[in-house]
Amino acid sequence: MAKKIRLGILGGGGDSLIGVLHRVASHINDNYQITGAVFNPDFEANMAFAKEIDVPTDRIYTDFDVMVEEEMKLPADKRIQVCSVLTPNFLHFPMAKKLLENGFHVICEKPMTTTYEEAKILQEAQLKSGAVFAVTHTYTGYPMVRQMREMIKDGVLGKVHKVDARYYQGWINSIIHDKEKRSSVWRLDPKKAGISSCMGDIGVHAFNMIEYTTGLNIKSLLADFNYLYEDNKMDVDGTVLIRLDDYVKGVIRSSQVATGEENGLAIAIYGDKGALRWEQERPNFLYFLSDTEPVKIYKPGHAYNSELSLGGTKLPPGHPEGIFDAMANIYLGVARAIRGEDYNNGEFPTILDGVRGLNFIEATVASNKEGNIWVDLD
Amino acid sequence: MAKKIRLGILGGGGDSLIGVLHRVASHINDNYQITGAVFNPDFEANMAFAKEIDVPTDRIYTDFDVMVEEEMKLPADKRIQVCSVLTPNFLHFPMAKKLLENGFHVICEKPMTTTYEEAKILQEAQLKSGAVFAVTHTYTGYPMVRQMREMIKDGVLGKVHKVDARYYQGWINSIIHDKEKRSSVWRLDPKKAGISSCMGDIGVHAFNMIEYTTGLNIKSLLADFNYLYEDNKMDVDGTVLIRLDDYVKGVIRSSQVATGEENGLAIAIYGDKGALRWEQERPNFLYFLSDTEPVKIYKPGHAYNSELSLGGTKLPPGHPEGIFDAMANIYLGVARAIRGEDYNNGEFPTILDGVRGLNFIEATVASNKEGNIWVDLD
Amino acid sequence: MAKKIRLGILGGGGDSLIGVLHRVASHINDNYQITGAVFNPDFEANMAFAKEIDVPTDRIYTDFDVMVEEEMKLPADKRIQVCSVLTPNFLHFPMAKKLLENGFHVICEKPMTTTYEEAKILQEAQLKSGAVFAVTHTYTGYPMVRQMREMIKDGVLGKVHKVDARYYQGWINSIIHDKEKRSSVWRLDPKKAGISSCMGDIGVHAFNMIEYTTGLNIKSLLADFNYLYEDNKMDVDGTVLIRLDDYVKGVIRSSQVATGEENGLAIAIYGDKGALRWEQERPNFLYFLSDTEPVKIYKPGHAYNSELSLGGTKLPPGHPEGIFDAMANIYLGVARAIRGEDYNNGEFPTILDGVRGLNFIEATVASNKEGNIWVDLD
Amino acid sequence: MAKKIRLGILGGGGDSLIGVLHRVASHINDNYQITGAVFNPDFEANMAFAKEIDVPTDRIYTDFDVMVEEEMKLPADKRIQVCSVLTPNFLHFPMAKKLLENGFHVICEKPMTTTYEEAKILQEAQLKSGAVFAVTHTYTGYPMVRQMREMIKDGVLGKVHKVDARYYQGWINSIIHDKEKRSSVWRLDPKKAGISSCMGDIGVHAFNMIEYTTGLNIKSLLADFNYLYEDNKMDVDGTVLIRLDDYVKGVIRSSQVATGEENGLAIAIYGDKGALRWEQERPNFLYFLSDTEPVKIYKPGHAYNSELSLGGTKLPPGHPEGIFDAMANIYLGVARAIRGEDYNNGEFPTILDGVRGLNFIEATVASNKEGNIWVDLD
Repeated sequence: MAKKIRLGILGGGGDSLIGVLHRVASHINDNYQITGAVFNPDFEANMAFAKEIDVPTDRIYTDFDVMVEEEMKLPADKRIQVCSVLTPNFLHFPMAKKLLENGFHVICEKPMTTTYEEAKILQEAQLKSGAVFAVTHTYTGYPMVRQMREMIKDGVLGKVHKVDARYYQGWINSIIHDKEKRSSVWRLDPKKAGISSCMGDIGVHAFNMIEYTTGLNIKSLLADFNYLYEDNKMDVDGTVLIRLDDYVKGVIRSSQVATGEENGLAIAIYGDKGALRWEQERPNFLYFLSDTEPVKIYKPGHAYNSELSLGGTKLPPGHPEGIFDAMANIYLGVARAIRGEDYNNGEFPTILDGVRGLNFIEATVASNKEGNIWVDLD
Repeated sequence: MAKKIRLGILGGGGDSLIGVLHRVASHINDNYQITGAVFNPDFEANMAFAKEIDVPTDRIYTDFDVMVEEEMKLPADKRIQVCSVLTPNFLHFPMAKKLLENGFHVICEKPMTTTYEEAKILQEAQLKSGAVFAVTHTYTGYPMVRQMREMIKDGVLGKVHKVDARYYQGWINSIIHDKEKRSSVWRLDPKKAGISSCMGDIGVHAFNMIEYTTGLNIKSLLADFNYLYEDNKMDVDGTVLIRLDDYVKGVIRSSQVATGEENGLAIAIYGDKGALRWEQERPNFLYFLSDTEPVKIYKPGHAYNSELSLGGTKLPPGHPEGIFDAMANIYLGVARAIRGEDYNNGEFPTILDGVRGLNFIEATVASNKEGNIWVDLD
Repeated sequence: MAKKIRLGILGGGGDSLIGVLHRVASHINDNYQITGAVFNPDFEANMAFAKEIDVPTDRIYTDFDVMVEEEMKLPADKRIQVCSVLTPNFLHFPMAKKLLENGFHVICEKPMTTTYEEAKILQEAQLKSGAVFAVTHTYTGYPMVRQMREMIKDGVLGKVHKVDARYYQGWINSIIHDKEKRSSVWRLDPKKAGISSCMGDIGVHAFNMIEYTTGLNIKSLLADFNYLYEDNKMDVDGTVLIRLDDYVKGVIRSSQVATGEENGLAIAIYGDKGALRWEQERPNFLYFLSDTEPVKIYKPGHAYNSELSLGGTKLPPGHPEGIFDAMANIYLGVARAIRGEDYNNGEFPTILDGVRGLNFIEATVASNKEGNIWVDLD
Repeated sequence: MAKKIRLGILGGGGDSLIGVLHRVASHINDNYQITGAVFNPDFEANMAFAKEIDVPTDRIYTDFDVMVEEEMKLPADKRIQVCSVLTPNFLHFPMAKKLLENGFHVICEKPMTTTYEEAKILQEAQLKSGAVFAVTHTYTGYPMVRQMREMIKDGVLGKVHKVDARYYQGWINSIIHDKEKRSSVWRLDPKKAGISSCMGDIGVHAFNMIEYTTGLNIKSLLADFNYLYEDNKMDVDGTVLIRLDDYVKGVIRSSQVATGEENGLAIAIYGDKGALRWEQERPNFLYFLSDTEPVKIYKPGHAYNSELSLGGTKLPPGHPEGIFDAMANIYLGVARAIRGEDYNNGEFPTILDGVRGLNFIEATVASNKEGNIWVDLD
């Protein structure tokens, strides 16, 4: 029986972009019904938004704690089953923790927590509860990223020797170069935004993409950050040397001052038998390179793709897929997991991805601070 | 007040691709609620599908006529407001006509009817009813196609002199080259599929795209079809010379045997001051060409785009948009029209586009049949 | 023994672009020595240019007739062996004819003659003399165009069903839209430029490319030209429907008012097993498309390429090749032929290509003039 | 007076690729005449090759020392003016030094010397002699690389903040993964190939490209090499963090085991007002990125390009330029310098580029060896 899953939403009200992204994704495969929410800390705005998007207002709550309390009073078959946490970063940890402790499944925006310490506590809570927990590393939802993972797992590249990922954006430019703005914006205030801007916000996606596609763990790293101005306290650019094992090395490049770049996430994995290259802004094209054969371009929806990849394609080849499709694929994986259906490892990023992401961010900050030394990851 | 619009669906059940496309599109902007449906002529399958996608079964009807009858008994504020017609082609006309006659708004799949004659009758019915009527020329929903239209309207290209559009696919190859298959498939049977395969199915998209982006009407044409085998009765490939006025000419190329092409819709418009080029498989990139300046690539979501284009972008630049987004933009335009809100001309293809499409298809068939002569469009 | 071949040059003096192109190409493979020339009808300019590019002045002649006369007095082993004809179009025919009649080999710029009639006379002269005769359809010199030819010959595409070639340029725009200019420029004066501008100058390249790569002959055509202004007497744009046999059709598109296009020659050939696509402005990338396999990109210099293709690549993969390389490959083929070495059919365009080109041009003009009717080629 | 410059060639005989490249480049602009040579240490092979490419044999010498001795006996207006040094790397230094000491101009292949020490000695010799000295960092000869330099110099990017260059190749793969081969090939033998393979051979091109295009000096670096196998003694892959000044940072990535990459040199420069991106394998396309405007693609030969760029384009827009054109532009710059003509800074890489290249290579080796520490460049 495929009854829709009861979805709660925390944050994401008004014209929040992340709110749109999660809401659309939850609709796409007909798996979820928004059942309850605290879209906004202001109750009036919260209710207004619920009406605007036509969510029944009887389970729009005044705040998160009330929501948990009230939902727990409901019978299990009426209660919200899974909750999307789209609130400001510092709230991810307490909310996700409480949700897990009360038996809710969780879909948590990234970064999962603000510290590695918190991430490990959350991981324990999840282990204890056994609930499904997804961190929205959205890019792993693209069919061709999944195809990349499966091809590497199947040995198409042979032994991997070199990895290279980047996430370049330009959007902080107009803020960073304006002394007034850069001293006032919350994103560049360490008290509000945590220990890292560039690495925490986007570098971690490149990190996650490497581990997701190769199935390998990054073991140690050496980071160099750029703050651009002496009075700026947050990294807005950085490069990280990485080691996966003694003879597998690579680099993660990340920048928020890469003028004109939009969401320039790209990854290349080189093995002794072949290589794969993919770019987020042209997500439907996966390039396979070889020293002896013509370059091959894999595209979604073809029978030559893996089951994991095909599971994320809804239409025949030639229909471009976008970011909503990618996020929808993650929601689909979570739905399968909640329903106890079989699903492939790789259908959604788990709490482990969240934990490793925080480990990565803190390690880069430490490496940079100590003068660009090698720091091990757990 | 933004109450969701009550949407009825005809056809599109089971694993129908067009069903997925419309359903997702209706969800994306939070404007529609599926209220009633005849997903499938088989009532059992119809009900099963409704349950699968969690649509309330009390307004799942045994057939279309019952649906109209029953809905008309409901008070206006409960009744289905707009109906998506996703049934086999020959049913579009009778269903759309009856819907219009009963005051429903209509979203109709393409081709709107099977003959130009029917199309004109439908047009009259729509004029009489005053209902909103959209034909899903989906590609006009892409933000950069809309940007193209607005730039041309604003005179960025100067006077247009040359238009060139194509839609190349390869998927009929495996059928057409197999004598057994090509004589048995409904698509290549004129009795079942109407007067044209290639031109009616995809050539008409290229036609529509030219008229949509340039705002010009194609006045006459000369067509040459290819059937590939003597025993094949339907066009699977064709080229059409077109004239927009005495000194504006162009070409429409269309093929279902263009091996390896997927949904290869592409358009180029050349004016005396510049040119624009766009391809469906890379929908987020619009190229502006000039004889004297660097090529410019326009991308969605930037402030430099027109209002019409920006209205169809939900996320910031750099997040790839796909076919669901394009269809969703058409649904959004229809929602605005139904609610009586202001909307830009160009937000959805109207019945006029449907009428002209049929005019085009019949004209190409006539031109080809008469030995490649020029035929005027109305 | 690889003594350099003695090369005479007619025309191409001063800053003539075509002069540079031929001169560089003749140097590239160390096969030619410029031995005599009439670079310019003005003798002073002729001598000055010879000195500028350091060609010995003792065999710089006052005019073409003197050159032939004087060279014929020299012993065969001193005499110019092959002559490049780079003069204005109307001189190609008389010069080439006289050269052939005196036993010289000829490399002739395109168009070979100004009429099909002349072309056939020249063909007879060549047959009689047995001399090597090349027409510089330069684009056939690109390694990946040669690879395309060989793959089609080897059956990689199966049976060819559809061909599509275009040559779009924008450069006439600034002239055509200026009444003063378009009435005075020699290119748009039928008395000076012959019967066709667009088709004769560039459309014929698209025609040649189709016949070169497929090995098929175009049997009949239907053309539609655009003159853009009533007072303009020459075609500046045109589309040609073509038939290779009953069930192999295609289209040639050609324009000199395709604003912003530079040398936009592109070709796509579709067969029942696969397709090939190539563009002149990215000459090192040949795309193979299939309905069932990933797209493949062939690049020059790899062992997977044909002998004909590899013979035109001088450096290892990854070094971009340009137009000089393409022309040089044609000069190389001519050198092999002159030396009586083995060479592949396809190493240079022969007089037959020139003859067919003129046949094509005249046929398009006739088709357009007669109201877009089908015209057979010989 | 534009008499051809008398060019001597050392090395590059037989089917040497570098020999072809230099010979073709010397021909392209009609500036050089090969006057003397030691193509091969074996005199018989030397003479045979001279005959094959039709160079007069009277100035083909038994060895380099004889060549210098004999040429010095000739009057200045007969003597070789400039000598191309294409011999194995360890011979560059002694030959170039002796050539300078005898007043010859020098075109030297890269790496200029095998040590930084030698490079500085050579620099002194050049300063003393005043001769023209070019190091063939060929890629700086591409018109769009030159355009990049000029645009940055003109402030189009504003203040540069981030630089990112890479050179990825895959060709050593088949050797490195074969224990037998990797222990026997000269390239991976430190005694024969010097201190670095990957960084010395290709990383240095990325280094040079950054300094050439930005006009900035790299001040310090931190390098991490990968040897892939314990028994391999030479770097085949490496990443280098770089600092140009306190708030301008970047990265150089270099690999010879990047499977399937050919000559994957690419560079991106980000400033506060815009960015530029260029790739060697598509050398005719230069991308300008901005946060607020459409991406612009600059192409060669247009009036919008700088004088320096246009000086390297021989044909109108739309004719692809290749690696021969790039090298020819460097030969052209050298010719202008030898003739004492005005030339733009940037027309050819000077001895300073060679010196800095060696400084870079030794610094990377030191950084890597010392455990990835920061090392200053002079």
